[in-house]
Order: sequence, then C-alpha cells, then structure tokens
Amino acid sequence: MHSVKLIGPSRAFLKSCQDYQIKQFSKSLHYPANEDRIKISDLSKNTRKLYEGLIRGDRACLAKSITLVESTHPGKREDARKLIGLASNYSKAAGLEAKTFRLGLSGPPGAGKSTFIEAMGMKLTSEGHKVAVLAVDPSSGNQGGSLLGDKTRMEELTRNPNAYIRPSPNSCHLGGVTRNTNDTILLCEVCGYDMVIVETVGVGQSEYAVVDMVDAFCLLLPPTAGDELQGIKRGIVEMSDLILVNKSDGDLLASARRTASDYTSALKFLRPRLKIWKPKVCLVSSKLGTGLDEAWKKLNEFKNVLIKNDEFHKRRAYQRKTWMWSYINNRLLDIFNDHYAVKTQRESLETHVINQTLSPGEASDMLINEFLKNYKKQTST
Amino acid sequence: MHSVKLIGPSRAFLKSCQDYQIKQFSKSLHYPANEDRIKISDLSKNTRKLYEGLIRGDRACLAKSITLVESTHPGKREDARKLIGLASNYSKAAGLEAKTFRLGLSGPPGAGKSTFIEAMGMKLTSEGHKVAVLAVDPSSGNQGGSLLGDKTRMEELTRNPNAYIRPSPNSCHLGGVTRNTNDTILLCEVCGYDMVIVETVGVGQSEYAVVDMVDAFCLLLPPTAGDELQGIKRGIVEMSDLILVNKSDGDLLASARRTASDYTSALKFLRPRLKIWKPKVCLVSSKLGTGLDEAWKKLNEFKNVLIKNDEFHKRRAYQRKTWMWSYINNRLLDIFNDHYAVKTQRESLETHVINQTLSPGEASDMLINEFLKNYKKQTST
Repeated sequence: MHSVKLIGPSRAFLKSCQDYQIKQFSKSLHYPANEDRIKISDLSKNTRKLYEGLIRGDRACLAKSITLVESTHPGKREDARKLIGLASNYSKAAGLEAKTFRLGLSGPPGAGKSTFIEAMGMKLTSEGHKVAVLAVDPSSGNQGGSLLGDKTRMEELTRNPNAYIRPSPNSCHLGGVTRNTNDTILLCEVCGYDMVIVETVGVGQSEYAVVDMVDAFCLLLPPTAGDELQGIKRGIVEMSDLILVNKSDGDLLASARRTASDYTSALKFLRPRLKIWKPKVCLVSSKLGTGLDEAWKKLNEFKNVLIKNDEFHKRRAYQRKTWMWSYINNRLLDIFNDHYAVKTQRESLETHVINQTLSPGEASDMLINEFLKNYKKQTST
Repeated sequence: MHSVKLIGPSRAFLKSCQDYQIKQFSKSLHYPANEDRIKISDLSKNTRKLYEGLIRGDRACLAKSITLVESTHPGKREDARKLIGLASNYSKAAGLEAKTFRLGLSGPPGAGKSTFIEAMGMKLTSEGHKVAVLAVDPSSGNQGGSLLGDKTRMEELTRNPNAYIRPSPNSCHLGGVTRNTNDTILLCEVCGYDMVIVETVGVGQSEYAVVDMVDAFCLLLPPTAGDELQGIKRGIVEMSDLILVNKSDGDLLASARRTASDYTSALKFLRPRLKIWKPKVCLVSSKLGTGLDEAWKKLNEFKNVLIKNDEFHKRRAYQRKTWMWSYINNRLLDIFNDHYAVKTQRESLETHVINQTLSPGEASDMLINEFLKNYKKQTST
C-alpha cells in the first residue's frame, strides 16, 4: 500500500488559479463600445450649450467651460467630466492632435514673459493662428505674485479677437494648481485655438508638471540672468527645448549677448532631454519685435524634428497617461472628502490629533478604514 | 369626516432620522483606549531595536529610522507606521513639544545656506543644543540641484557629535518631496535633537509645505538680493518671521546694508503673518560669525512671543492636523496602487488612453470604480 501524504495544493496549481482569476476579472471589466460612450444627449441643457459654443469657436463659451472645469461643486464636477469626455472624443474625431501646438513658457519674474507673449501672440494671430494663453501660478490666491510684479497684462492681445487669455484661477490650493490645466488645454483646442501657450510664473514645482502637458518647453530669461546663473534651477534649464534671452535691445544688448553665451556654454555640460534635439539659445526683443521670427522658426523646427522621429504623437500619448493618473489622484481625494463616513468623522478625529490623544498616522488610518468599509453601504442605499 | 392627505414623512422627521444615523455611526467608530494603542511589543525585532536606539539618542539608529520611513516597500511602510506611532506617544509622554524648536530656512541658491547652517549649528552645539538639519529639495534626484551649486556641505558640522545632517532623499517624485518630513522631524526630536532646521533649497513650492511643519520660518538672502527684489516670491517674504542678509562682511557689507534696508521698507507694504510679531531683518556673516548671536536672540524672542500669546502650541496642534491630511492623501494613493484590481487593470486602461479609445477621464473613473467595488472582496478573502 502506498503511504498517502496529505499536502496542500501545489504552488503551480495556486499560481494557475490566480492567473485564471485575473483573466476572468479582466474580462468582467466592461469597456464602453463606441455607441455606449458619452453623447451630446447625456449633457445637461447648459452644458450642451457650452459644448455647441465650443465647437463653434465661441470665446465666451470657452471661458464658461473653463470656469465649469475649475468648479469644485460636486454637481458641476459631474457636468465638467461629461463635457471633457465629449471634448476628448471630438478632438480625436477632428484629428486636432496634428493641428495643434502646445508651448510651455517659463522664466523668472522680470524676464518679461507678458510682453513676450503679447508680442509673439500678435505676430502669430496676424499669421492666421488662434492663440490661447493659460497662466499657472502656484503662489496665486492670497499669496499672490512677486514682490514688484509688473502690471502689464497683455493689453493689446486681450483685445485681439483671435486670442484668448486665461489668468490663473485664484482660489487654488497647493498641488491643485495644475489640476485642470490638461482639461483647459483640450477645451481651447476644441474651441479652435491651434496654439496654446501655458505660462508658468514661478521658477518652481509647477514647471515639472507643465512640461508633461506641452509639446515644447521654452525658458525666457532677462539679460542679466548670466550673473545669477545658479539662481535658475538646473532642472528647468535641462527641460528647456529653447532658451530665449529677452530685452535684447538698447543698453541691455551687450548683457543679453553675454547671458546667451553663458547659457550656450552651460548647455554643453547638461544632458539633453532628447537625443534628437540640441536645445537652442536665441536673442529676442519683445519691445522691438526682433528675434521673434527666429524663435518661431526654431520652435517649428523642433516640432518637425519631433514629428519626423515619431516623437510628437508618442509624447502626446504618454502625456494622456500622465493626465489619467493625475485625474485618478484628484478624483480619489474628492470621493474620499465627499463621503459621509469622512464627513461625520473628520472633525472628531482632528480633535483627537490636535489633543494628541491619537497620532496623525493612527487617525488617518482610522478615517481611511471607515471610508473603505462604508463605501459599499453608501452606494447600495 | 376629515379628508386624509397622503403625504410623505416631513422634512423635520427626515432630518432627525439623519442626525440619529450620524450619531449612531459616530458611536460605532472605536477609538483605541490608551492600553489598546501601539506598544513596543507590537514592533518587529529590527524596528524595536531602532526605537530603543532612538530614545537612547543613537545617531545611527536615527539614520536607519529615517531610511525606514522613506521606504516605499509595503512591509517596511507598515513597520514605519508603527515606529512613528510609538514615537508620537513617546513625544507626548516626554513633553517634547515644549522642549524643541523647529526652524524652516529658505533662500535662493547663492545665499550661503550651508555655510550659515554650519556656523549657526556650531554655535548652538557649543551652547549645549543638539542640532538636526534636514534638507528638502523638490529638484533632487535626477534633476538635481542648481546649475553652479556649491559643494561645501557643512564639513565641520558633519563631524560634530551633537549634530545630525540628513540630505534630501534622492528618489523622490514630485509632490512626494515633503512626504516624510513631518515624520523625520519627530524622529529627530525623539532622538534628543532639540533644534531641528529644515532647509529648503529652492524658492518654490516646498516652502509652502515646510512652513506648515516648523515653528519659525527664516529667509536667508545674499547681499545682492536687493537688486533683484522681484525675483524673490512675495509669498515667501510674507511667510518669513526673520530675514537674514548673509555675507555681511568685507566688500559686500555696503551691499548687504542696502539689501537689508530694501527689505525693511518692503516689509512695511506686506501684510504680516501674525498680528503679534513684526518680521525683523538682520545682517549676518557666516564667515566672521558676526550677527549669529543677534539672529539667535531674535528667533528666541519670536518663540517667546508665540508662547506668551498661546500661539506656539496652537500652531503645533494645527500642524498635526495638516500632517494627518497629508498622511491621508498619501495612504489613499498607496492603497489604490497596491490593490489587485488596479494592478490588473491599469495597463490595459493605459493602453486605451494612449490609443485614444478611452479619454483619460473615462479611464480613471473606470479604474476608481473597480477599486471601490472590489475593495471589500479583497479584504474578506
């Protein structure tokens, strides 16, 4: 007689069960077929008007759509999600990816970003482009602006019918600064703006977020920036595809040339972001309008190099993935904060943390557990 | 006969039902009694050694504890949470809040932060303090440092047995920069460091996070900063309790005096952060050691004003609340990313987003729904 050994299921068996489970699970996830995806008829009356205005190229509708997307009201957030969903579909159907150009523009305060954008914007609109300018400022709101910030806010461009200028939202909390920028870019493009400039006002963390939303990143410098070369973050120089030294006119021309040559040599010591493109340094004068043609030529050269090397669409695809994860981060926190278990418990737990009867870690674990435990309850009632 | 009107329950009745539900729900949440809270015996053998080393003041154990807290490995994260929980309890029991001082120090590259910290640190240790220095740099990692960043990294202080210097973690992603700083400060204090200096290297977003972790915030400026006054963010000047103009010696003394007077006048136009304290401007020379006594006196003056006005403990309490919410944000995303529904679905959804067959918003909603729907399943098996 054989002796019988009682053993559990083999590792291989368990593994195959797990694989099967995962396969079944993947199958169970229902992707909407094209006809199931969001339709105009799913929109509320107001949102539908916004969408129809958008694809008609109505600037007022664009402004209202962006305001909707920036809203934190739960009902409006739902409308915003539908609008963005429909705008995404439209963008794909109309092939907007190939027809649009997204430019990130950064630089220290005093570099003359506003005057540069005004000059460049006027040039581009006169050549038949429609230009949207979006400002992203991490210190906006009650901590607003730089100490002696200039007040010239692109007066001429503001009145230009082919330009749309959107100041940064003034109620944003930290981290939420760039929360809606991806959505806003999409809305501008759907509204017919083929050139979207995203201006970052600080030389800080927002640049790292913006570079993941644009096709090209441009650093604008004042002519004296050479003296304080070390004040500009290495990372921001490294991510720039084009460096422009502004105010290259009059008394400052010599200083601008020195700055340009300082950066040209500095670039030699930096690892380029792409193998196919060596970042360029150009002199521009927003006042005289010199160098703008050259800068625009260089940007187009860069775009063409990207397209030729199949990098342009790859980048946009990668950026959509980043966008999806930034959505997830935000949505998850919204759902958490809107949940009744969180709403009813947060104050009491905060009091415990304030009085040190619970540590911040203990309290957060408890609140998260309550949320996860009670999530189903809420959805099933 | 009376006519009977069929009506639903009154609004008041519904409201009272809802209130009752909330009350019952609040009761159901179980707060750990003191004896239920984390104990040394809950720690793994290694973590226990770290904890025992910490409260003994062992610098090597402090270094290892911080590394544990910065780890992203799920098992280690669990250990880290227990260690922090125990450290929190110890901090409360030992009354460390009243015995410690947390200083945020920021300034543009070139201000001489390292030499200042070295000089100040040597002074404080010679007076019997134990000093910990933590660096927070949003551009660390592969985007590292400033273009011509100095390499002097506090050589003398590094060798000082009463000082502990922790460079910024080099693997951090954006937003996660200051993720563990609260924990690290606590560990330093439990290890006997009564003075914790948190150095922020950029003049960017991390300052806004750090100001919520420290008792006092100090801005260090180079003597030429007056010329580029507008380059320093208004928000960072506004949040500073003390402004120090460094390198106030030799040739630069006149320039330093001008900078100090520029900032003294600028401060008049800014709204002070606290009604009880007018930010001060001081001249220091890290090289000669002049002004350090004065700066330290001012910092203590500030601390005393806070304590006298009952602001010191209020602030720490408020900061614990902020800390709790930063925990929640991070934990929620960790749980999400570790979940099997997310792990099995993310790649396929990402592919849809890349190919534009799903919009980023649709895909993120689907992934979040899968997570929430399946959370219970996973925990009950």
